[in-house]
Amino acid sequence: MEKQSSIFKNTYRVYYEDTDAQGVVYYANYLRFYERARTDCLRELGINQSELVKSDNILFVVRRCEINYKASAKLDDLITVETQTVKIGNASIEMNQKLIREDGVVLNEAKFFLVCVNNKIRPTKVPENLRELLLK
Amino acid sequence: MEKQSSIFKNTYRVYYEDTDAQGVVYYANYLRFYERARTDCLRELGINQSELVKSDNILFVVRRCEINYKASAKLDDLITVETQTVKIGNASIEMNQKLIREDGVVLNEAKFFLVCVNNKIRPTKVPENLRELLLK
Amino acid sequence: MEKQSSIFKNTYRVYYEDTDAQGVVYYANYLRFYERARTDCLRELGINQSELVKSDNILFVVRRCEINYKASAKLDDLITVETQTVKIGNASIEMNQKLIREDGVVLNEAKFFLVCVNNKIRPTKVPENLRELLLK
Amino acid sequence: MEKQSSIFKNTYRVYYEDTDAQGVVYYANYLRFYERARTDCLRELGINQSELVKSDNILFVVRRCEINYKASAKLDDLITVETQTVKIGNASIEMNQKLIREDGVVLNEAKFFLVCVNNKIRPTKVPENLRELLLK
Repeated sequence: MEKQSSIFKNTYRVYYEDTDAQGVVYYANYLRFYERARTDCLRELGINQSELVKSDNILFVVRRCEINYKASAKLDDLITVETQTVKIGNASIEMNQKLIREDGVVLNEAKFFLVCVNNKIRPTKVPENLRELLLK
Repeated sequence: MEKQSSIFKNTYRVYYEDTDAQGVVYYANYLRFYERARTDCLRELGINQSELVKSDNILFVVRRCEINYKASAKLDDLITVETQTVKIGNASIEMNQKLIREDGVVLNEAKFFLVCVNNKIRPTKVPENLRELLLK
Repeated sequence: MEKQSSIFKNTYRVYYEDTDAQGVVYYANYLRFYERARTDCLRELGINQSELVKSDNILFVVRRCEINYKASAKLDDLITVETQTVKIGNASIEMNQKLIREDGVVLNEAKFFLVCVNNKIRPTKVPENLRELLLK
Repeated sequence: MEKQSSIFKNTYRVYYEDTDAQGVVYYANYLRFYERARTDCLRELGINQSELVKSDNILFVVRRCEINYKASAKLDDLITVETQTVKIGNASIEMNQKLIREDGVVLNEAKFFLVCVNNKIRPTKVPENLRELLLK
C-alpha cells in the first residue's frame, strides 16, 4: 500500500503577465504555477531549493509531465494549487497537482515525474529526510 | 490506416529570456517553442490564427499535453521543432512534436491534444480545408 | 506643492521562472514585479482592473518607463516593491517604484508614466474616485 | 564628434506567449525583443555571449533603460528591431533601439545603458575587438 503525503495548498493571483491574447492564462504558464507550488510546498517543509544546491549539490528536474486542461483562469483570479506526493522512488518523486478556482472548479490537473539529480545532472538518491518530510 | 501528415520543421534560437538559474531552458518554456512551431506550421499552410478568429470565430485550445524531458537546451542553442499531425477527429487534432538540438539529439518529445472551439469556447468542427491541408 | 500618495508595499517571492542563465532575475522580469505591485496597490484601494474594463471601459497603459538596475535578485529571494503615486494629471498617472531585498538593499528603481485610456485606446480622464483614493 | 555604429535590423514574430489579456504584447515583453536583437546583433559580428562568458569571463548587464511606448504590437505581427550603438565608454555601451511594425510605424523606442562586467559582476574594460566591431 502506497503511503500518500498530505495535500499542500498554495494560492496565487493571476496577473496580466500570466495571460495571453485569448484573454486567459497562457497554457504554458500553468506549469509556472505548478512549479511555484512544488517549491512552496518544499519551503513549508523547511527545504529551500537554492540551499539544497549549495549544501547537497541536489536539484530536482522534471522528467515527464501530463496535464489536462479543463477550463481557463482569467485575469485577477485567485487560484489554489493542490500538491500531493504520490510516490517516492530511489531517485524519483511523483506528484499530482490540481489548479482550482475560488469557486471550487478544477481548471486543470497534472502529474509530474521529478528526478533528483546531482551537479552533473545524474540521478541521485532522494535525501532521507526529504523522503520522510514529503510522506509524513 | 491512419494518414499522417508531413513533418514540419521550424528552427528557433534560445535566448536569455528562455533560460533559468539552472543554466538551461526553463521547463515550462519548451511549451512556448512547441506552440510557436504549431503556429508556424499552420502559417506555412496559409493559415493565420488571428485571421481565423476574425473570419471563422475559430480558436485552437490545448486540452491535454504529455511531455518527456530527456536533455536540456542551453543559451544560444539553435533548436528545431518537428511537428506532425497524427490524427484529426471531428473537433480535435492530435500532434506529435519533438525538440531537437543542432547535433541531432532529441531534447524532449511531446504529444498535444488540441480542440477546435468557437467564440463561446465550445468544441466545433475542424474546418474542412484545414483538415485537408494538415493531412496532405 | 505636490501631494504625494502613501507608499504601498507588496512582497513577492522569486521563483525559477523569474531567473535566467546568469543566475539572477531576468532584467525584463522586474517589470512584471512592478506591474504586479501597481495592480495590488489598486486592489488594496478597492479597484479591480478587470472590473474597471467592464464597468468603465478604462484601462491603464504604460507610456514610458525608466529603470535603474543596481543589484540583482536571486532565486528564493523575498522582494518588496514600494509604490508611490507622485502625480496625477488629467489622463495620466506618474508612479515611482522601488524593488527592495529583505536586507533592505534597493535592487532597482523605476519611474512609470501611465495613461488612462478608453476601449479605443484613446486617453481619457482618470476617474475622480480613483484620483482621490490614490492621493489619499 | 561621436562615431556611430551601423544600424542592425532583426525581425521577429509575435506569438501568443508574447501577448496579454489586453490583446497586445505585454509591456515587459518588448524588453525581451530588445535583448534578442542586441544578442543577434553581437552574433552577426561574430560574438557569441555564452562563449564570451567562458573565454573572457565577460558579461553584459543592463544598468539603465528608458522606454517610450507609442503603439502596440499584436499577435502574428512581424516586428523589426533596429539597434544602434551610440557610445562606448571604458566599461559601458549605450545603445538606441526601435521596434518597428511591418507598415513602418515605430511602436516603441528605447535607450539601453549596458555595463561590461567580469565574473564577480565588477565593471571591466569592453574588449578592444568588440569596441571596433561595434563602431565599424
